[in-house]
Amino acid sequence: MIKAGILGATGYVGQELVRILYRHPDVEIKVLTSNKHNNQDYNSIYGNFNKICEMKCEENDLETITSELDVVFLSLPHGVTSKLLSDSILKSVKVIDLSADYRLKSDKVYEEWYKIKHNNKELLRQSIYGLSEWNRKPISESRLVANPGCYPTCALLCLLPLIKDGILEVDSIIIDAKSGVTGAGRSLNLTTHYSECNESIKAYNVTSHRHTPEIEQQLSKLNGDNISVTFTPHLIPMNRGILCTCYGNLKNSLSYEDIEKLYEKYYQNEYFIRMTKKGVFPETKWVKGSNYCDIGFTLNKKANKIIVIGAIDNLIKGAAGQAVQNMNLMFNLGENMGLKSIPMFPV
Amino acid sequence: MIKAGILGATGYVGQELVRILYRHPDVEIKVLTSNKHNNQDYNSIYGNFNKICEMKCEENDLETITSELDVVFLSLPHGVTSKLLSDSILKSVKVIDLSADYRLKSDKVYEEWYKIKHNNKELLRQSIYGLSEWNRKPISESRLVANPGCYPTCALLCLLPLIKDGILEVDSIIIDAKSGVTGAGRSLNLTTHYSECNESIKAYNVTSHRHTPEIEQQLSKLNGDNISVTFTPHLIPMNRGILCTCYGNLKNSLSYEDIEKLYEKYYQNEYFIRMTKKGVFPETKWVKGSNYCDIGFTLNKKANKIIVIGAIDNLIKGAAGQAVQNMNLMFNLGENMGLKSIPMFPV
Amino acid sequence: MIKAGILGATGYVGQELVRILYRHPDVEIKVLTSNKHNNQDYNSIYGNFNKICEMKCEENDLETITSELDVVFLSLPHGVTSKLLSDSILKSVKVIDLSADYRLKSDKVYEEWYKIKHNNKELLRQSIYGLSEWNRKPISESRLVANPGCYPTCALLCLLPLIKDGILEVDSIIIDAKSGVTGAGRSLNLTTHYSECNESIKAYNVTSHRHTPEIEQQLSKLNGDNISVTFTPHLIPMNRGILCTCYGNLKNSLSYEDIEKLYEKYYQNEYFIRMTKKGVFPETKWVKGSNYCDIGFTLNKKANKIIVIGAIDNLIKGAAGQAVQNMNLMFNLGENMGLKSIPMFPV
Amino acid sequence: MIKAGILGATGYVGQELVRILYRHPDVEIKVLTSNKHNNQDYNSIYGNFNKICEMKCEENDLETITSELDVVFLSLPHGVTSKLLSDSILKSVKVIDLSADYRLKSDKVYEEWYKIKHNNKELLRQSIYGLSEWNRKPISESRLVANPGCYPTCALLCLLPLIKDGILEVDSIIIDAKSGVTGAGRSLNLTTHYSECNESIKAYNVTSHRHTPEIEQQLSKLNGDNISVTFTPHLIPMNRGILCTCYGNLKNSLSYEDIEKLYEKYYQNEYFIRMTKKGVFPETKWVKGSNYCDIGFTLNKKANKIIVIGAIDNLIKGAAGQAVQNMNLMFNLGENMGLKSIPMFPV
Repeated sequence: MIKAGILGATGYVGQELVRILYRHPDVEIKVLTSNKHNNQDYNSIYGNFNKICEMKCEENDLETITSELDVVFLSLPHGVTSKLLSDSILKSVKVIDLSADYRLKSDKVYEEWYKIKHNNKELLRQSIYGLSEWNRKPISESRLVANPGCYPTCALLCLLPLIKDGILEVDSIIIDAKSGVTGAGRSLNLTTHYSECNESIKAYNVTSHRHTPEIEQQLSKLNGDNISVTFTPHLIPMNRGILCTCYGNLKNSLSYEDIEKLYEKYYQNEYFIRMTKKGVFPETKWVKGSNYCDIGFTLNKKANKIIVIGAIDNLIKGAAGQAVQNMNLMFNLGENMGLKSIPMFPV
Repeated sequence: MIKAGILGATGYVGQELVRILYRHPDVEIKVLTSNKHNNQDYNSIYGNFNKICEMKCEENDLETITSELDVVFLSLPHGVTSKLLSDSILKSVKVIDLSADYRLKSDKVYEEWYKIKHNNKELLRQSIYGLSEWNRKPISESRLVANPGCYPTCALLCLLPLIKDGILEVDSIIIDAKSGVTGAGRSLNLTTHYSECNESIKAYNVTSHRHTPEIEQQLSKLNGDNISVTFTPHLIPMNRGILCTCYGNLKNSLSYEDIEKLYEKYYQNEYFIRMTKKGVFPETKWVKGSNYCDIGFTLNKKANKIIVIGAIDNLIKGAAGQAVQNMNLMFNLGENMGLKSIPMFPV
Repeated sequence: MIKAGILGATGYVGQELVRILYRHPDVEIKVLTSNKHNNQDYNSIYGNFNKICEMKCEENDLETITSELDVVFLSLPHGVTSKLLSDSILKSVKVIDLSADYRLKSDKVYEEWYKIKHNNKELLRQSIYGLSEWNRKPISESRLVANPGCYPTCALLCLLPLIKDGILEVDSIIIDAKSGVTGAGRSLNLTTHYSECNESIKAYNVTSHRHTPEIEQQLSKLNGDNISVTFTPHLIPMNRGILCTCYGNLKNSLSYEDIEKLYEKYYQNEYFIRMTKKGVFPETKWVKGSNYCDIGFTLNKKANKIIVIGAIDNLIKGAAGQAVQNMNLMFNLGENMGLKSIPMFPV
Repeated sequence: MIKAGILGATGYVGQELVRILYRHPDVEIKVLTSNKHNNQDYNSIYGNFNKICEMKCEENDLETITSELDVVFLSLPHGVTSKLLSDSILKSVKVIDLSADYRLKSDKVYEEWYKIKHNNKELLRQSIYGLSEWNRKPISESRLVANPGCYPTCALLCLLPLIKDGILEVDSIIIDAKSGVTGAGRSLNLTTHYSECNESIKAYNVTSHRHTPEIEQQLSKLNGDNISVTFTPHLIPMNRGILCTCYGNLKNSLSYEDIEKLYEKYYQNEYFIRMTKKGVFPETKWVKGSNYCDIGFTLNKKANKIIVIGAIDNLIKGAAGQAVQNMNLMFNLGENMGLKSIPMFPV
């Protein structure tokens, strides 16, 4: 059994990690930490765990707890894990970091967008970007995986095949993204106060969202070009789910079937990626509660544009589920172990 | 492997049965039927099953399909299964009927409330009411289980311990129940048109809901008295979940601790029943996606009343989950096989 | 023109007062105060007022601002207005207090339920309970009106005719109430964090909600008896609306028509009270955005119980609207001035 | 008093017309029609009109009813009004058609997108497109106004100033639109069944929505170019509101302030158009219940793109409200008569 610890177990992502790992056949959770709820019963914070989990929250003391663990999931705010980690810790335990601290390879870009200093440029160089389907081998050999952001996961899975094959004009990419409210976490904020976001929709952080450079980095890396995107996230009155509507100009005229083959080439053997049939487009309801990413597309021939739409459960494929998928890779387990749940509907 | 068939697999309850049974370690689904969607791909109707279930819907032809099955789940409208079933069918296959047709032991009461004739009074006598926790032995020996209604499941689990020990004035019971919209099924209706029920609450079928005689029958059976209840269901703008707020007058003055012990006596070893701590009350969010029933209570000493609150997922403990629990009993499997999923939150 | 001030104008109730009074033909708003948003543009806090209201928030300095006002609405937390008011202030301005401070005539009861000392027992004696339909004359002659709580408004309008005519067993009353989330205000709280209350229902403050003594006081006052009620509020995933499902035992057997006449006697000339037809029950969607209270009822003959259901918009009839209705009474205006808006649907 | 009739008064748009016109100081509603609910009490269909509107629904018999009317609002499905109208009717009554039948000036384009023949090409030539702010004079002189679609209203108000001044590359325009569920009307459909659209988001009619040619026609007309757009509507789990996120490439480099001035030039005196401040973007909650259109924008300098965001209440500015605004123009009333309601929040 893999001994796992979860730091920051009382956020929504942390809690989803607990839920998934509790039913993972090869994992035993040894430690849950929460600075805010230190020493409280986990099930007094999350009543769904009543009669299931009898653990108490401990302090986020990474040094002490790593000794007994094989893997640790860090579900902490950005800026924390770049201080917390060290070479010596990585020698004793594998780390999957769900914060943004080890995603951007350039500390300059990190500091520009996150407005804080990066504390560990050395480890930044070693970290592997954990987009499972596109980075499988490096992930499986890594001791420090930077789990992708929720929006980048969805947008990249939609766009990477097109970028890889170089069929898009690189300056034309627009990602119009829509997220449920759990994406904003459990911390109190007027934006996520029920009556402020219920029954309304808004764009936020227009052209300034921190996932922008993460998407640009991964697209550019694959392509060699310096790709910039226009990224507009929107807040949707629902709990879970991300839908990305991506637009790009085709360099040449291509048919639906041409592009269908292109996606097949990359995704036909992927367990967690489901292409929708022609004329059918993803809906977040069909992926909720699962690690799937659904993708569909169509063409606007008049404007020579492609519209690609992707849907994920932001807390699972966009966070905790992909983290477990990465853990499976790092420990040579079946990639879908503990992740076979069928999307639940209606929910 | 138990070979299972699901008749009426394209309603919400049918679909939940498919989802649960697909991951049940001892079950293989052999047949899905749907008169409405006959011959269509199941995953074209429910996109969550894309790349998971490649079966087609067949016709509801019970005679033909039972030959290859060990168990059949009937998720059909009331009035249908009382015509469909026969002794010969029951000889070849065990049946779990999720409709109302075999719940009320009196065909007179059935005909009064459902306004149609009952077609099989003989089988009605043999059927066993499938409230798993309170009827375990008869269920395990039965070939025809009448799976309880969603409201009765929740209300009865709250009230039966109190009735069994005779501590309530029998004419005082009020059940103020609240249900999510999936309780009304997938058939189109102005009541469940999005903009008609979203952002609003109403009571419906006040004093005339068909689950009333079902609740009264089970309470009276246990008690010997002729118990009548006041039952008021409400429609809540959410997908899943039932909350029952039950009121009753205590015959004698009892303390919180007295009643706590009473519930413990009946429920302390029940896997699927979770009593909340003193001062904590059930919320539907903590049971969603699971087969749990959470129960909590308090006293209004001034009025010598008890208030008991129960919460279930209407599609699981209130329908498909309890049906699988009953199947487990009928086939001598662990009662929680295939039903160990942890409630999902926030969802 | 009546010169009005609103203290606490940036809460949801305060904002609704601004919205209603802005379109009131006989009122001019002179002052909006907010300690939290002092000196900010009102329309930067509530974007709906963009290009409509160009006022700035001022400090809650009652002494200074009353000089130029005819009426002041106090939409402040409980405990504040009992300190703020004085005889001299009441000499220069009429006051409508939307907090709980002047509702309970007994300071003992106030202190028991609100856990703070009452600072002005003298004024408490003078204050008039502002349930417009039942206290019209005293309100019109008063300089200090205590505007009722949202739940009491709805519950009392349902129950008072029955209590007044003495047809209920006084110890039998149960009020099972359901409220939208705006009832909890705009202050941040985990309970009203979107993903915590969306798609779920719970009871809260069971047997301990502070509106209980307010309801009991008004029922008892009318009746002479010492009436106690069992009151269970629930939180519903919607923005606006309260539904009260009230239960009581009839002393004698009465027909639907008997009770219909009883309600007619009290309400047939009331502009804001609408009785639903036999077999039709109130839904919150039909009153949203208006000052109406819809009421319907039925009988459970077997148990000799009556079930009365009432619906209001909690921010209007349950707060700001009734406050304006009271202002109209206090200034001898038409009672429905500024309050004629038709409920908006679907919204 | 203007005597008005509403044909199709029991759809959501029809009902919103009734609500607005009932409080319009210069209008008297003489006829409400509904084929589906012929001869029923209007308030039995829409409970919000209880004690307010005592009218009955009549048949949609345009010939007969026009004799007593000054204006008729046609809120009927497309394909109906092109048959219904005639020169002789237009001689006796002014008509505001809320269907699509008279919006597209080319009957070829109409027939291509709506898949039915247009029955009155003569009247098509006379009809005036009723985008109030951009067509004021022709509307005021017209007897047949084609009220714009909900999406086109929002998208055009965002884009027309940019197109008029020719600052966009005409083949670059993308409109990513999001609508609440009332946009789909009151007819039953699986797509708008509560549990099918609640808590989920999807794109629909991608590249094939019928509002596309309407938007293209109006943009092209102003510009002289043949402008084609990429239009992707999404269904959002909320009752009301449309948000359009529009993208375009700037021909030349322009500053925020340049474009701010451009919008000012067209909109600074418009009562119903509100530009948001720099860094602030429209949210549907701030316009709900009103005839306002809020517009904000920003630039992505790296990609030389502009992002313009607009928000309207789809049933008001996107339908009934704009229809009344057009009626005001046609009868020389103040343009905002009956339309001054302040957006209601939270609702």
